[in-house]
Amino acid sequence: MQLEQIKYPAQESVALTEPFFHMAFSVDCVIFGFDGNELKILLIKRGEEPFGGYWALPGNLIYLNENIHDGAARVLRELTGLQNVYLEQVETFGTVNRHPLGRVITTAYYSLVKIADCPVFAQSHAEEVSWFPISKVSDLAFDHLEILKACMQKLKKIVRGRPVGFELLPPKFTLSELQRLYEAILEYPMDKRNFRKKILSMNILVELEQYQEGVAHRPARLYKFDEEKYKRFVEEGFSFAV
Amino acid sequence: MQLEQIKYPAQESVALTEPFFHMAFSVDCVIFGFDGNELKILLIKRGEEPFGGYWALPGNLIYLNENIHDGAARVLRELTGLQNVYLEQVETFGTVNRHPLGRVITTAYYSLVKIADCPVFAQSHAEEVSWFPISKVSDLAFDHLEILKACMQKLKKIVRGRPVGFELLPPKFTLSELQRLYEAILEYPMDKRNFRKKILSMNILVELEQYQEGVAHRPARLYKFDEEKYKRFVEEGFSFAV
Repeated sequence: MQLEQIKYPAQESVALTEPFFHMAFSVDCVIFGFDGNELKILLIKRGEEPFGGYWALPGNLIYLNENIHDGAARVLRELTGLQNVYLEQVETFGTVNRHPLGRVITTAYYSLVKIADCPVFAQSHAEEVSWFPISKVSDLAFDHLEILKACMQKLKKIVRGRPVGFELLPPKFTLSELQRLYEAILEYPMDKRNFRKKILSMNILVELEQYQEGVAHRPARLYKFDEEKYKRFVEEGFSFAV
Repeated sequence: MQLEQIKYPAQESVALTEPFFHMAFSVDCVIFGFDGNELKILLIKRGEEPFGGYWALPGNLIYLNENIHDGAARVLRELTGLQNVYLEQVETFGTVNRHPLGRVITTAYYSLVKIADCPVFAQSHAEEVSWFPISKVSDLAFDHLEILKACMQKLKKIVRGRPVGFELLPPKFTLSELQRLYEAILEYPMDKRNFRKKILSMNILVELEQYQEGVAHRPARLYKFDEEKYKRFVEEGFSFAV
C-alpha cells in the first residue's frame, strides 16, 4: 500500500458532505467452490494499486451506465474467465474509509460452484487466480476478509434452511460424500448416525440399488436427489440441524 | 415530475464511464407495522422534487462521511421521528436510470414494529407521514414499489424460517391473535386447526391457565412465548408451512 488514504472526518463537514455525487460503487464476487472434500474460495492476486500484490476477492468499480448485477457478472468474467455462474446478492458494505481512493461502497455477490466445472484464468488486473481453502485465508485486500466472513455466515444460514448439493455432487453419491459437503460448509464434524437419520427424514433422497465401485472398503450404497422434492424445499425451506 | 431525467446510454461511452466517482448513494427504510389486525407500511409524502407530492418510502442520500447503516437510522429519524428501531439490510437496488438526478444506488433496510409503540411525525422533506395497509399501496415515487415488494418477499421468507410475534403481540395473546399476525404477513388465510397444530408442535408457546376477559364469545385461552426457545429458534431457524 503506497497510496495515501483519504480520511473523511468523523463529524459532518459541509465541504465533504454537500456534494453527494462523489462516490463510486463496486462489486465483489464471493465464489465458493467444492472439490468433493473441501470448501474453497476463489481469489485473485491484484496486479494494480491499491493493494497491488495482495490477494483479494474478484471485484472492481462498476460503470455509470451499468446495472449492478450486470457489473458483478462482468467483473467476475473479466478477472477470472468465469461466466454463466448464478450470482446472488448478499450484502452491501459501506463503512466510510474502506477504500483508499475515496468513498467506495461495495455490494457482495455470492455463488457456490463445483470447482471441476469451473476452469479459471487470470485476466485484466488479476495477476493470478486461484482457489484457496477457506481455513487458509487470513489476509486480504481492503475489507475483503470481513466480506468473506459475512458471506460464509450467509452460506451457513442458507444451508440450514434449504437443501444443497444438487450442483456440487456427482449425480449419484454416497451419504458420506453428502455429509462431507455439509461438514465443509458448516465447519464442524457431524455424527454419522445423526446425519443419516436427519438427512433421510427430510425425504429429499432416493435410495438406489447401486453401490460404489472400485473401493477398498465395503462399497457404500448410492443415492440421488429427488429432483422435484429438492426443488420444492429450495423454495419452501426446511430446517437442518445436526 | 417536472425534472428532466438524465438517461445514460445503454452502451458504454467513455465520457460517462471513465469518471467513476460520480455516483450518489441513498438508503430507503421499509418499516412494516402490525396493528393487531393488519400489516401496514410507513410512507412519507415528499415535499420536494423529484417526485414532489408522491408517497414514498422514507429515504434520502447519505453523506460522504457517513456509514450506510448510520445513514439509514439518521434518514428514518429525520423524516419520521422514528428512532431506536432495529434496521436490517435487505437488498441494494442499482438499475441505471432509477433516479432522475443521476446515478443513485440505494440500499433498502427493513424493520417490523408494533404500530402502537411507534409514534411518527413528518419532518424535513416529508410533508406527511402515515401507515398504509400494504394492499392499498399501488403507486410510489422512484422504484419504491419494486423495493417494497422485494422486502415483502423477504419478510415472508423470514417468517417461514424463524418465529415472529414477540415484539408485535401483547405479552399474553390468543392463538387467534397469533394466527392473524401470520396471515397478515403471509397474505393468505390459514386453516385454524392446521395453524394450531403446527404452531404448538414448534414448542415455542407456553399455555397459560388464563383466559380472555371481557369478550362476548367464549373466552379463548391465553399463551405467551417461551422466551428462551423463541430466541434459540430465531438464531437456528425452523420451517413454518401451513
